[in-house]
Amino acid sequence: MRRKRRERVAEPDTSAVAGPGREVHLHLDGEVRKNAALRLKSARGHLDGIVRMLEDPGVYCVDVLKQVKAVQGALARVSENVLRSHIREHVLTANERGDVDTMVEELMEALKYRPGGS
Amino acid sequence: MRRKRRERVAEPDTSAVAGPGREVHLHLDGEVRKNAALRLKSARGHLDGIVRMLEDPGVYCVDVLKQVKAVQGALARVSENVLRSHIREHVLTANERGDVDTMVEELMEALKYRPGGS
Amino acid sequence: MRRKRRERVAEPDTSAVAGPGREVHLHLDGEVRKNAALRLKSARGHLDGIVRMLEDPGVYCVDVLKQVKAVQGALARVSENVLRSHIREHVLTANERGDVDTMVEELMEALKYRPGGS
Amino acid sequence: MRRKRRERVAEPDTSAVAGPGREVHLHLDGEVRKNAALRLKSARGHLDGIVRMLEDPGVYCVDVLKQVKAVQGALARVSENVLRSHIREHVLTANERGDVDTMVEELMEALKYRPGGS
Repeated sequence: MRRKRRERVAEPDTSAVAGPGREVHLHLDGEVRKNAALRLKSARGHLDGIVRMLEDPGVYCVDVLKQVKAVQGALARVSENVLRSHIREHVLTANERGDVDTMVEELMEALKYRPGGS
Repeated sequence: MRRKRRERVAEPDTSAVAGPGREVHLHLDGEVRKNAALRLKSARGHLDGIVRMLEDPGVYCVDVLKQVKAVQGALARVSENVLRSHIREHVLTANERGDVDTMVEELMEALKYRPGGS
Repeated sequence: MRRKRRERVAEPDTSAVAGPGREVHLHLDGEVRKNAALRLKSARGHLDGIVRMLEDPGVYCVDVLKQVKAVQGALARVSENVLRSHIREHVLTANERGDVDTMVEELMEALKYRPGGS
Repeated sequence: MRRKRRERVAEPDTSAVAGPGREVHLHLDGEVRKNAALRLKSARGHLDGIVRMLEDPGVYCVDVLKQVKAVQGALARVSENVLRSHIREHVLTANERGDVDTMVEELMEALKYRPGGS
């Protein structure tokens, strides 16, 4: 699951963001990244709790459903933060950078999987 | 998060599921429960992977979004299985047991939080 | 799109809901049905408004998105009411009626398409 | 529901998209707009069909749910097309135009209401 650093070669005629021939590194903002890691660790702890809850043969279905939803809500908030940062840092500047098609398709694809309203 | 065993006192005039005055224990089916625990442990491992991924300052936003969505999909499948078991074991028999209002409201509430289509 | 009345033949050994050999008619509760029709007519009027809005070459994308979401919210409320009525009137009594498998699969299928949180 | 044409005054130092002091008109692409109108008219016809379906006292709940979901799917496809056009035409160029905060917040707000996966 670990991905290597993503590198994009800038289009020759962009300049503000990347000089001609310079590689553009699109990476997640540091603060958002650390905050996401903290929230995911907390979600992991919550999942641990559900696994223990499931060791009880008398556990009630609806209580499991509620706990799983709580974790899904926490993950949705992580996604929302990462998405907002991505839009601000990378999508709004795509025209200058020149990777318009990639950014549109990636964003639409990411939104496709997105659960609603949470 | 750990919940105590849920106990319901049957209405006096129900009989097939619980005799008068007998407590009815609604609990998650054993097979579904064990399968849910396995899947949640796997989701927890996946979350661990995303946390490690986030230690890399060069991680790309969209890769994080994709991984979080994968975990959300896994959680949605756990919920689907638990929900199906709950409907089969407890909802379809509510009229005989006599806890109709509770079952309707609980189910609608559980569905409310449900992300779509995943 | 118009569907014919749905008829189900009860299992021979059910009695409370349908006598042996009697056909069981599962149909949407009258009040819920009329309320759903009213709400859908209102949603249709709302769609008319969006179609007119789209005749303006200067219409802004986000305004269209907001209006479409409003209609989706209205449709989600119709679905919620119909679903709640279906669960109360038909799902909770499935065990007595004997069409357990059909009711579970139909319900899970209906929930599958369900958008979240709206 | 009809909105007036949206006008934004460009920031003084942007140039590629709008000259200093020139108004920027952000509006939905003509082809996407016409296609959206067609699809919404079709969805309106579909809603008409469900309203007629609901005149039948024997209509079955799950058939109503399925038809409503079909309309929701059609609306989701309209939203997807409008959203994709909005991202391509307006979001990717926000940095040059200078309305970064507005575009991020509007987009996040539009996505918030978005039902998942349909």
